[in-house]
Amino acid sequence: MNFSSDTSAPAHPRVIEALASANTGMEASYGGDTVTAALRGKLAAIFETEDFDYWLTASGTASNALALSCFCSSIGAVLCHEEAHIARDERGAPEFFSGGGKLQLLTGFGARIDRDALETALRQINPAFVHETPAEALSLTNLTECGTAYRAAEVALYAGLAKEKGLAVHLDGARLGNVLAKGKATAADMTWRAGVDVLTFGLTKTGAIGCEIILLFGDARKKFGELKARAKRAGHMPPKMRFLAAQAHAMLEGGLWLELAGQANARAQALADVFTQAGFDLAYPVDGNEVFPRLTDEAAGRLTAAGGVFYPWPGGAYRFVCSWSTAEAEIAAVAGALKA
Amino acid sequence: MNFSSDTSAPAHPRVIEALASANTGMEASYGGDTVTAALRGKLAAIFETEDFDYWLTASGTASNALALSCFCSSIGAVLCHEEAHIARDERGAPEFFSGGGKLQLLTGFGARIDRDALETALRQINPAFVHETPAEALSLTNLTECGTAYRAAEVALYAGLAKEKGLAVHLDGARLGNVLAKGKATAADMTWRAGVDVLTFGLTKTGAIGCEIILLFGDARKKFGELKARAKRAGHMPPKMRFLAAQAHAMLEGGLWLELAGQANARAQALADVFTQAGFDLAYPVDGNEVFPRLTDEAAGRLTAAGGVFYPWPGGAYRFVCSWSTAEAEIAAVAGALKA
Amino acid sequence: MNFSSDTSAPAHPRVIEALASANTGMEASYGGDTVTAALRGKLAAIFETEDFDYWLTASGTASNALALSCFCSSIGAVLCHEEAHIARDERGAPEFFSGGGKLQLLTGFGARIDRDALETALRQINPAFVHETPAEALSLTNLTECGTAYRAAEVALYAGLAKEKGLAVHLDGARLGNVLAKGKATAADMTWRAGVDVLTFGLTKTGAIGCEIILLFGDARKKFGELKARAKRAGHMPPKMRFLAAQAHAMLEGGLWLELAGQANARAQALADVFTQAGFDLAYPVDGNEVFPRLTDEAAGRLTAAGGVFYPWPGGAYRFVCSWSTAEAEIAAVAGALKA
Amino acid sequence: MNFSSDTSAPAHPRVIEALASANTGMEASYGGDTVTAALRGKLAAIFETEDFDYWLTASGTASNALALSCFCSSIGAVLCHEEAHIARDERGAPEFFSGGGKLQLLTGFGARIDRDALETALRQINPAFVHETPAEALSLTNLTECGTAYRAAEVALYAGLAKEKGLAVHLDGARLGNVLAKGKATAADMTWRAGVDVLTFGLTKTGAIGCEIILLFGDARKKFGELKARAKRAGHMPPKMRFLAAQAHAMLEGGLWLELAGQANARAQALADVFTQAGFDLAYPVDGNEVFPRLTDEAAGRLTAAGGVFYPWPGGAYRFVCSWSTAEAEIAAVAGALKA
Repeated sequence: MNFSSDTSAPAHPRVIEALASANTGMEASYGGDTVTAALRGKLAAIFETEDFDYWLTASGTASNALALSCFCSSIGAVLCHEEAHIARDERGAPEFFSGGGKLQLLTGFGARIDRDALETALRQINPAFVHETPAEALSLTNLTECGTAYRAAEVALYAGLAKEKGLAVHLDGARLGNVLAKGKATAADMTWRAGVDVLTFGLTKTGAIGCEIILLFGDARKKFGELKARAKRAGHMPPKMRFLAAQAHAMLEGGLWLELAGQANARAQALADVFTQAGFDLAYPVDGNEVFPRLTDEAAGRLTAAGGVFYPWPGGAYRFVCSWSTAEAEIAAVAGALKA
Repeated sequence: MNFSSDTSAPAHPRVIEALASANTGMEASYGGDTVTAALRGKLAAIFETEDFDYWLTASGTASNALALSCFCSSIGAVLCHEEAHIARDERGAPEFFSGGGKLQLLTGFGARIDRDALETALRQINPAFVHETPAEALSLTNLTECGTAYRAAEVALYAGLAKEKGLAVHLDGARLGNVLAKGKATAADMTWRAGVDVLTFGLTKTGAIGCEIILLFGDARKKFGELKARAKRAGHMPPKMRFLAAQAHAMLEGGLWLELAGQANARAQALADVFTQAGFDLAYPVDGNEVFPRLTDEAAGRLTAAGGVFYPWPGGAYRFVCSWSTAEAEIAAVAGALKA
Repeated sequence: MNFSSDTSAPAHPRVIEALASANTGMEASYGGDTVTAALRGKLAAIFETEDFDYWLTASGTASNALALSCFCSSIGAVLCHEEAHIARDERGAPEFFSGGGKLQLLTGFGARIDRDALETALRQINPAFVHETPAEALSLTNLTECGTAYRAAEVALYAGLAKEKGLAVHLDGARLGNVLAKGKATAADMTWRAGVDVLTFGLTKTGAIGCEIILLFGDARKKFGELKARAKRAGHMPPKMRFLAAQAHAMLEGGLWLELAGQANARAQALADVFTQAGFDLAYPVDGNEVFPRLTDEAAGRLTAAGGVFYPWPGGAYRFVCSWSTAEAEIAAVAGALKA
Repeated sequence: MNFSSDTSAPAHPRVIEALASANTGMEASYGGDTVTAALRGKLAAIFETEDFDYWLTASGTASNALALSCFCSSIGAVLCHEEAHIARDERGAPEFFSGGGKLQLLTGFGARIDRDALETALRQINPAFVHETPAEALSLTNLTECGTAYRAAEVALYAGLAKEKGLAVHLDGARLGNVLAKGKATAADMTWRAGVDVLTFGLTKTGAIGCEIILLFGDARKKFGELKARAKRAGHMPPKMRFLAAQAHAMLEGGLWLELAGQANARAQALADVFTQAGFDLAYPVDGNEVFPRLTDEAAGRLTAAGGVFYPWPGGAYRFVCSWSTAEAEIAAVAGALKA
């Protein structure tokens, strides 16, 4: 009954096996290895394009901040939701990596940016007015911090609005697999075809040890040299990078990432059903692997007493996160504890 | 015959096994796990003290820069050798992490800081003269970039001089195992007993996948909270940190790190003998796992033609690095190629 | 009828005279001059204490950012009102000077921080939770951006709450003279006696060419060396600093600053009366030299047509700023244009 | 007999008069005023071009750092002499403004970069090698810190070499007037015609209160928006900028700046003659207003006893700086003291 976070889950065994397989002989350091190079084909297949560059890190925070720092200068701002991970949970990483750039926080239900809020913010951008910091990038998160999803058409709409004003578009896809596993959009539709310039494609929460892929699409590829330089000086150019790449191979091979994400989603849906059948509202729709029931103190206490691990969330609900390793028995245990 | 770098070597198989062993069940994220906590005992035994705190990263560059940023402010400088890794090979990481602090470069043979150069630099520090940037930390590297070592007494002497002027002392120990495997000093003598405040204890080059331990000793422990905050915002607080810690367990258990470092050293010594017997001078003494022969163009060409991989080095010599995985046959192949 | 800003006004003639008087002979550079030193007495008299240090800059933005950067680290945040000058109008200066620190924006009517908002923010500070950026300083502005004032007792209350949580307290006093000229509190009561650690004491808007004094009170004086170093590297240690100090002498001598601020206040009050008599509401109370009438488009257009200069303000009102040089005739002209 | 620095001299009386003249009526703030705009004509005449943009600050340190930060990114380096003001005397300002960029220090006699040192550094630039920080700008200083000058042809040669490698070229002209007053080159020949992209044109040391003009020439003008934004957030966009511009008008009108610089040069030459006639060598040729005699301790002591103010300089000589206000009697007094 540990629903604390998908970051607390183990890695899928195939990821460990892939590390062992990669552990043979000498390989060029710092990303020049054959394992990393061989990822290109898998990524091209998933994203249905050859027009991209990629870099690997072991950290979602680093991936987001590195990605943003290539598109938001030290005198610019990033538009994001006020509950975005980059705003709330990364200890100022975007400000650090950009050299003092700002986050401009937008509102919206369920950690999804409200269209009016976005349009207002975009309208106010005036680079000629030197006193204020103009937004240079829009950062969306899908799956959001509230477990809700943007549809591909919404990403495309928002990206289009942002691009009209000259902004770059970043997608924090720490839980992108959970969105795509729903089968409503392809990876390409949700990213570059929708206008996303730079993607943080997370595999850690899905089932890797620590593996995030930064993808630059189309024109954004001209930032690839800068991205590598920034990665190097931030300590995100590991000497034995083949072991990051090996994780990605294991996760992407045969669609394992989607399979694991789908499994986590299914558990979350089952858990949501348990809560609603027990009479508890959900604060947000369940679009992925996170459930936010509005528990009574009594119910929360009972679950905790039964060994449940989960966190209260700003706004009054509790957060339950399912991972690829969440067992059906854990869902049943929640149901049991609520009935008891 | 690949002597390009110990960073190009595979990991020792026990490191992979340790990852598999750690891959069970849920664990607290971001360093709160039991695997990370259990490292304390091993480190206490190696360093013969309980008076320390530690943090893990996958990157030597990050470890050095994080360590230094806790002791050198944005308006201060770090004294280091002009050939130090932090000055030459980290793309400005110390300047980035410190927010614009400076490196003040000192000279000395074989990448070892000359005592006169250090004393001159220390004498010139005048925090009251606001126009110049005063040194706030001394960074030593052992094993140095030229494969030479400081003795423990030298580290103690230099640290003592630095501390008289109020500087903190950092030791970049990316190849510390190679120094200690010589058996001339203990880990404690070479670090905190010599006055080192903060150590980057590298295990990656010794045989891990990617694992560096930052240790804060004694009074320096008051910086531990700041260190964690800086690690977080730099993306060096991996969610599944147990897998970093598992690598450290494997390397430290039963002294594997010293055994592997000693093996690399032995190969380097054998290689050095091959070069000297073939009539080539060595640019620097061989104190660890690196050899710098002054090859003729002809000899270098012959080695390359025979499949040898190694780099020319500033100053005219070539660098050959041995790792735990360097085979005796590779040394023999060099000898053969030189004779042919 | 130019009410665009008090920064568009000329300097008081005595300021120019003071420059001429200071322009004799050689003086030590970079703040070591006798003119700067002689300010201590005047400041001690005004603030009724000897327990302070001070530094001069020509810029309010620089003064605020320098002051804050001594009390908010690169991994910390500053609490301030969402309409504060440091948040809205300084192009990210606090983030730049602090090396990537954050501003945490609080709400409240009339650019005055709401007590509940402050208490909530203070309650949420948890330095042990490394993922979020803890507030390290509170920045108040008096006179606020909406021309409203905090009473000394309010500053003391807010400062007390902040200090309980370990925060430093900064006061942006770009228009402090306008507050104090009301005669409701002394400079000491409004600053160090209320718990203010560091003050930006603005004289530019009051009537200088460009002269802001950063004052560190009590324990905060231990940051004086750091403040000077930060000023130096930001280009705010002018070689001929005597000319900044001379401006301060002119403004402080005989209470000229309070006289000029009072005169601007009187004009603003007269202007406010004109608007209310003409049937227009004021968006905010007039506590200083700024007036925010809710004009109809028609009335605003008529004023503009008559040569009036003023700006629309977020929230729907218009901003009119009076300075020491605003003439009674300008107020009368507004009245005339509104009646026409 | 105060030869401490030209920054300790008073301003020329016409500068004060110009402030008084500019002190009439309302003016747009933050550089939008008519006084600042009217500088364009004077600058166009001096530099014989219309193809430039300009910004004013009160600080040479700020002007250099702002200029460089537009051309050297946070992941780049600036080539400069190891004795350059930006390296030695600005407390890390370039590193601060660039967000952690590096200075790469070159050698050469008399604070003039050696051609070989420059060519070696340029040859080593390899942006594809991500571990090292590639130079993105060359910063020359004329007059140098040792009072020596580059000829216009040398500036053109060095700029040409730098541009071949894609570097931008900055000229720190804190004492440009002293170079040009020699009559050997025009302002245009020494700057944009020689390939200088961005110039810090200093008037403070020449006779202003505090006035430096940053000029962007030709293609570099595309950085003007960024320059203003950086100036704003660094507190170098003074609200009443007309008073900076008024200083520039006074200095440039009728060639006052060249007249004053020439007068300082003449005094320096006379002082140099005094030293050589007294049997003291000069460490460097006297190309402007600075003299570096190799005094004996006895002679230095005698001058000090007689009221002389001057500083020992790294390398063993003493520095004597003449300004526009240095009197012939002061030179005579030195001669007298040396003979006594």
